[in-house]
This record gives sequence, structure tokens and C-alpha cells, in this order.
Amino acid sequence: MAKTNWSVPVTEALRAEGVQVAEFDASATPGFRPDKKLGAKKTAELLIEQRRPVLADLQEKLYANGRSGDSRSVLLVLQGMDTSGKGGIVRHVIGSVDPQGVDHAAFGVPTAEERRHHYLWRVRRQLPRPGQLGVFDRSHYEDVLVVRVHDMVPPEVWRKRFAEINTFERKAAESGITIVKVALLISLEEQRKRLEQRLDRPEKHWKFSPSDIDERAHVAAYQEAYQEVFDLTDTEYAPWYAVPADSKWYARLAVTELLIDALGTLKLDWPAAHFDVEEQRKRLRKS
Amino acid sequence: MAKTNWSVPVTEALRAEGVQVAEFDASATPGFRPDKKLGAKKTAELLIEQRRPVLADLQEKLYANGRSGDSRSVLLVLQGMDTSGKGGIVRHVIGSVDPQGVDHAAFGVPTAEERRHHYLWRVRRQLPRPGQLGVFDRSHYEDVLVVRVHDMVPPEVWRKRFAEINTFERKAAESGITIVKVALLISLEEQRKRLEQRLDRPEKHWKFSPSDIDERAHVAAYQEAYQEVFDLTDTEYAPWYAVPADSKWYARLAVTELLIDALGTLKLDWPAAHFDVEEQRKRLRKS
Repeated sequence: MAKTNWSVPVTEALRAEGVQVAEFDASATPGFRPDKKLGAKKTAELLIEQRRPVLADLQEKLYANGRSGDSRSVLLVLQGMDTSGKGGIVRHVIGSVDPQGVDHAAFGVPTAEERRHHYLWRVRRQLPRPGQLGVFDRSHYEDVLVVRVHDMVPPEVWRKRFAEINTFERKAAESGITIVKVALLISLEEQRKRLEQRLDRPEKHWKFSPSDIDERAHVAAYQEAYQEVFDLTDTEYAPWYAVPADSKWYARLAVTELLIDALGTLKLDWPAAHFDVEEQRKRLRKS
Repeated sequence: MAKTNWSVPVTEALRAEGVQVAEFDASATPGFRPDKKLGAKKTAELLIEQRRPVLADLQEKLYANGRSGDSRSVLLVLQGMDTSGKGGIVRHVIGSVDPQGVDHAAFGVPTAEERRHHYLWRVRRQLPRPGQLGVFDRSHYEDVLVVRVHDMVPPEVWRKRFAEINTFERKAAESGITIVKVALLISLEEQRKRLEQRLDRPEKHWKFSPSDIDERAHVAAYQEAYQEVFDLTDTEYAPWYAVPADSKWYARLAVTELLIDALGTLKLDWPAAHFDVEEQRKRLRKS
């Protein structure tokens, strides 16, 4: 990260290790000045304003290598309550790269077919293909979050899942998937504002469901569930990042930097030509 | 299309009906002034510069309705020789809308599993879901184009496919998919320039394959194959548009306008709230 504005690397500033969810400050901007204008400018630089924006450039190299036999890929797992900004991250951050190179999957309430399978079944088949930037909008973590908070399965069932998830993610990482897990954490107060905005604007009504309000009563149970997710599934091969999300500009900048960091660890370069360039030039001239 | 710069509607200017492929002028800009600056400005306006860009706005309405029970979707089928600009259309036009609402599928050389099935099998399972903007980068038309040109199956096999494809597309249209088929047609001379550029720039080498040059010898056979595709599969429910693609700016503007037109025919509006807004405001205040 040349010309960084971060006081500490983003991966350190946001790593979930040791985070206390119930005391988390969702309005903080760890590692970065609380300066919206500067943050938005930095994000725009990284995503769109340069001739070759950093994230799009790294993603294209990942894709190019994937097309040339490299089996590696990157997976962004996004978790967060309603209105925490998952959709905005997808639109603004992921939306800045080539759609051909994105494997996007949203995990809603399981369908009838999905319910007939193990909870990891639908997740496994959506893992990113070689060279792709995968995005999970919600994920297998719903099976230890909403499922736990609403007692959809007994504790002895969901409790076993933490170890299963670690094994699943370890195998995915070993197969070449660089996993970045992001929890977007917003305060109840900020969530109220965002839900009010949805109610105020008819073009946002489709995003609103009365059950979004019911969920607010369960915030303590969700905090407890996220706490265990961090405590039990934050690993070296699939780290969790706790991203304060009351400031949309900060969350977008942070996820952008986390992806740039993850892609950077792959040390990607353009694939070498598997043909003789001069010979092909001659053939082309004659064709 | 308010404030149009088109002399005739794009759907008329580009409809493949009656087009003679062998005499097609790939450098033309039907319906629009041959003015790159104006064309690029218009495309930028439609895709990115407004506060709510036209294409992204229509796509979001399609998605919103899809989430609210509307089963309709839109499918862009992209065909064209190597370097004809399919990738650029996906990156610049499709890349301007929300990735959540895009179902992108690229159809390359069939895999071993795909070869065990009917040629429409892999296509059918990639049809866009309700509310989605689907994009086929190549498609079932490969099975009457490359397959025909290279004699991969006998004529009596590929000849039956035109009727099969029409039936397949009619059923898809009846199920609520608005189909827009685009053939990007470039001249041999422009293709030579683009292949030269790929050879000149090491970061483009991964996009080049020596077989791209071999294909140039088959241009007459491809023209004949495209001619029959237009003659036999241009239908009211799945029209073909012949897009001159020597000018990238024109092809991008044209496909943008074709998608805007297709989405416009759906007469999309924001879904109505299925709850009492005032009641939810009160509940939210107490929550």
C-alpha cells in the first residue's frame, strides 16, 4: 500500500481477534482519520479514478491467471444485520471490477431443495471458480447466527457447526481460496435511521420488511452469537474482520483495502505468453 | 428515450432482418452520427454520470420487482468473433449496474460433463432468475456457428438446431424472459489491429491464442453461418441485432440503448409497499 493514509495496516486495525461485540463502537474508524471527505476520496482513487484502478487491476490479474491454469481465487464473506450496508459494498466495491470475474452468491432463507441437504451443501457449490473474486452476501454463518437466535435447531446441533465450518474453510483455503470474512457492525441507533429512510422513500419500500423491526429486539442474542463466531471461527486461514459500519464511507474503504491486501498476498503478475510473440506477429501479418 | 441523439430508434437501426452479412459495413454507425466524442459522452450519461443513471435505475427496478414476486427478467445474448468486444461490453455496460442483479454466464468449449448432455442443457440452467439481468457471453449459437464451421457435427445435426433454438427461445420468452440478441460484427482489418495490440502488450498476452489467427481463414464460412442465424432465428420474441463493432464507442452505446429499450418495454415501477408505512414508523420508533 503505497501512499497509505492508514496509521496501522487495515488487517491489524480490524482483525476480530479479541473484539468484544457487546462493547463494539460501530461509529469508530480504526486506523483511519475520522474524515469522510478524505476517506471517500481515497476509496474513489482505489476503485475508479486512476487509469488502472488498484482493485480492478488486481482482479484482472487474478482472472488472467485463472484463465492460464492458476487455480487460486479470493472469497469475500459478508455478514451483517439488515441495513448494515452489505448491498452497498457489493454495488460500490465489487461493482468496480469486471463482472466476468465475479462469482456473486446471496444466501437467503433456504429453499425447499436446500433444506433437504446439509447446510454447507449450498455454500460449497457457490465457492469461487479459479481466478474469480467470490462474494457471499450472507453465508454459512447464518446457520450459527439467525438459526441460533431463533432456535431453529437445538443448541447441540448448531454448536457442532463451529468446528465443521473451520474444517470446511480450512479445506477451501488449502484448495487455493483466499478467504476474507467481514462482519459489518452497526449500532441500533444507526439502524433505526436507515430503516426510517427506507420507510420515508417509496423507492426503498421493497427493501423493507416489518420483520426487520422484530429483529431489533434480538440484538443482545445476535451480539452473543457474533461473539462466538469471532471467538471460534477466526482463524489464520479464514480471518474475521470486525468492520464498524455506522459510517458507510469507512466500511467501503475498509473492505476495499482488505480485498487489495488479500489479492496482494497472491503476488499476481500477468501470465507469461505460451507462444512465440514474433512468430505470431508474422502469422498475423500473413493472415 | 428523451433527448435522443438517434435519427431512428436503435431497435430499427440495428435489427438484423434483411442484413447481408458478407456485405455488412462493420465501421458504420447506423442511426447515430459518426462522432466518437458525442457517442462516448452519451454512453457515459446513460451509464454513469447522472445521479441515477438510466440503465442502473431500470435494472434496480427489475431487481426490486423480482424480489417482490415479479417473475420477469432480461437476457442479453452476446455473439461475436474474438476481439469483437464482448468483454468490453460486459465490463463497461453490464459493469455499470449492481452486480447483485446480474446473472453472467460465459459459454466456452463444452466441458466433459456438458458434452454428455444436449447442447441446450448448459444454456437452460443459466437462464436469468426472476428480476435479474442475464448476460450470455457466447451462447447456444456456438452450436450453429463454430460447430458448423469446423464440422464438429454433421449438417443434418446442426441444421435441426435452428428450429430447436427458436422453440427454446419462445418458451423462455413465454416464461417472462425478454431476450435481446446482439451480434458484434467487426471487419478482418480491425480484428488484425486488435490482435496486433494483444501481441504488442504483455498484459494482453493471456487473451491471445494462436488459434485466433487460424480462425481468420474461416471468415467466409462464419459469414455464411451468421447469415443463416439471422435468416432463421431472428424472431419477434427473440430479435437479433447486427451491431457494427469496428468502433467500440458505437457498439457500447448501441448495446446500452438496446438494453434500455428492452427494460423500458417492461414498464417497470417501484413495487408497492405490502405494509402500512405509518404503522411501521410507529413500531420502529418504539423499537
